[in-house]
Amino acid sequence: MSNQFKLTILGSGSALPKKDRFQSAHLLEAHNKLFLIDCGEGMQIKAFQTKSNLSRLGHIFISHLHADHCLGLVGLISSLGMTGHRTNIEIHSAPELENLLKPQLDFFCQDLGFDIIFHPFNPRKKEIIFEDRTLIVKTLPLKHRVPTCGFIFEEKPKERHLIPEMIEAFNIPIKELPLIKKGGDFITEDGEIIENKKLTRDPSPSKKFVYCSDTLFLPKIVSDIENADCLFHEATFSEEEVLRAKKTYHSTAKQAATIALNSNAKKLVIGHFSSRYPNIEKIIDEAKSVFPETIATKDGLQIYF
Amino acid sequence: MSNQFKLTILGSGSALPKKDRFQSAHLLEAHNKLFLIDCGEGMQIKAFQTKSNLSRLGHIFISHLHADHCLGLVGLISSLGMTGHRTNIEIHSAPELENLLKPQLDFFCQDLGFDIIFHPFNPRKKEIIFEDRTLIVKTLPLKHRVPTCGFIFEEKPKERHLIPEMIEAFNIPIKELPLIKKGGDFITEDGEIIENKKLTRDPSPSKKFVYCSDTLFLPKIVSDIENADCLFHEATFSEEEVLRAKKTYHSTAKQAATIALNSNAKKLVIGHFSSRYPNIEKIIDEAKSVFPETIATKDGLQIYF
Repeated sequence: MSNQFKLTILGSGSALPKKDRFQSAHLLEAHNKLFLIDCGEGMQIKAFQTKSNLSRLGHIFISHLHADHCLGLVGLISSLGMTGHRTNIEIHSAPELENLLKPQLDFFCQDLGFDIIFHPFNPRKKEIIFEDRTLIVKTLPLKHRVPTCGFIFEEKPKERHLIPEMIEAFNIPIKELPLIKKGGDFITEDGEIIENKKLTRDPSPSKKFVYCSDTLFLPKIVSDIENADCLFHEATFSEEEVLRAKKTYHSTAKQAATIALNSNAKKLVIGHFSSRYPNIEKIIDEAKSVFPETIATKDGLQIYF
Repeated sequence: MSNQFKLTILGSGSALPKKDRFQSAHLLEAHNKLFLIDCGEGMQIKAFQTKSNLSRLGHIFISHLHADHCLGLVGLISSLGMTGHRTNIEIHSAPELENLLKPQLDFFCQDLGFDIIFHPFNPRKKEIIFEDRTLIVKTLPLKHRVPTCGFIFEEKPKERHLIPEMIEAFNIPIKELPLIKKGGDFITEDGEIIENKKLTRDPSPSKKFVYCSDTLFLPKIVSDIENADCLFHEATFSEEEVLRAKKTYHSTAKQAATIALNSNAKKLVIGHFSSRYPNIEKIIDEAKSVFPETIATKDGLQIYF
């Protein structure tokens, strides 16, 4: 389905990568566009492994300036340059990132066939940081050891569905249809008003994807992220480490599930697992005990919604 | 054997990483010390995969400042910091590297339990850039699109082997032995000189490892790298691409083998394969046709010599 969203996990690990869990990186495909959310070291390699075609990549969103969320950027850009990428790369992040990358970009990434455009945002404010014909991306301030944002990807309200029999019955000319799809009434030659609700059905609901990067358990975000079709929430620790989670400004799996439950998410995706866990069975079980519709990430996993 | 050298291939690919070939990185273990030679993106992940214990890592040698040879450094240092590394990290490279890494190191790698020390070298000159009790490392200027050096790791001349029966026969006191091992004669109480060659055998030969990073085919290096126990030489291209090799300042496998043959290497290790080759059978065959003792690298391979 063309309006399906696809989330590819390129890195499900946390600060310390493991052999099978790279650092944070997520690829969101929506409306034929590709968005990269965080870019840990080795992201470009995982993109190869998952056969992700990056030629349509244009916008990159960096949740916060910790090494495990952004050290893959220069390598990615260097490789995009070598493979003839033509789409500008626009990087949305806290302001400091530009100065951190600039010396390396200037040195290692010359003669690119595209521009690199930095769009700094204030991680302490809720802002709309991207908007096109079909999508809006907003920041969601979180609470971590450094200024950190989640991101809310929302489809704009869609057009109403025409009821073909009614369009035919009223003999409505094609040129009127775009306005009717947008909710307009139809006025016949005789001046009769045919109400839109007779001609159309409600549009498909708009999709919402929420990405909650590294954060302390933060119940107050619930009102901002309600009814997500898919909520990604970090779950660095198991409930046994709830104090360590608090101390390091991270969440447990149960806390992630609580956010999903209280915000009425349809699906919860957890990741950013601490390298201390040889396997994450326990973490999954803890989340599912609160929110059964939980999916645990692993590198290469693709989730459709 | 304690004096065996061990080379672990952490990245056998070239500019564009592949899913199974990361960018250049090689770990050399010698005399209980660990040296990293080049550090492409994801090196730290490959170190996990090969179960390499990096706690003894102290010196890193960067052959040249192309992204695929050094973008793994900040991630590596950040992770070493988190795992309680205590040995100073000394980076030997062209001078520009410090300014390229410094902004990120200052930002991402605070509170390290070790210092980062930059030792710039002039890639256009032959220099001794490292020396300790047992080893010397020299640079070997190569010819690539940017200033590039190979590295020559050489064991210092070893002590002579004592002949136990002779030491006993001449009743030589223990305190005299260190001097005799170094080649000194022994003088008895009666003033008689016992020549060293009666008391000792020749020492084990000193080992030599040569790392020839990205370079145009450069026959003039042969005299500098003679009799290597192990010669690593890049072999980016197959012989069909000999013109492309020349144009991009790289070597073919056959050219690498020619260097091995003419320099009387005991063993040739080829790597840095272009991502254009789905498999490297042809490259291996071309090298072996000139120099049968050729080993083709793959990520994770460990070579002892």
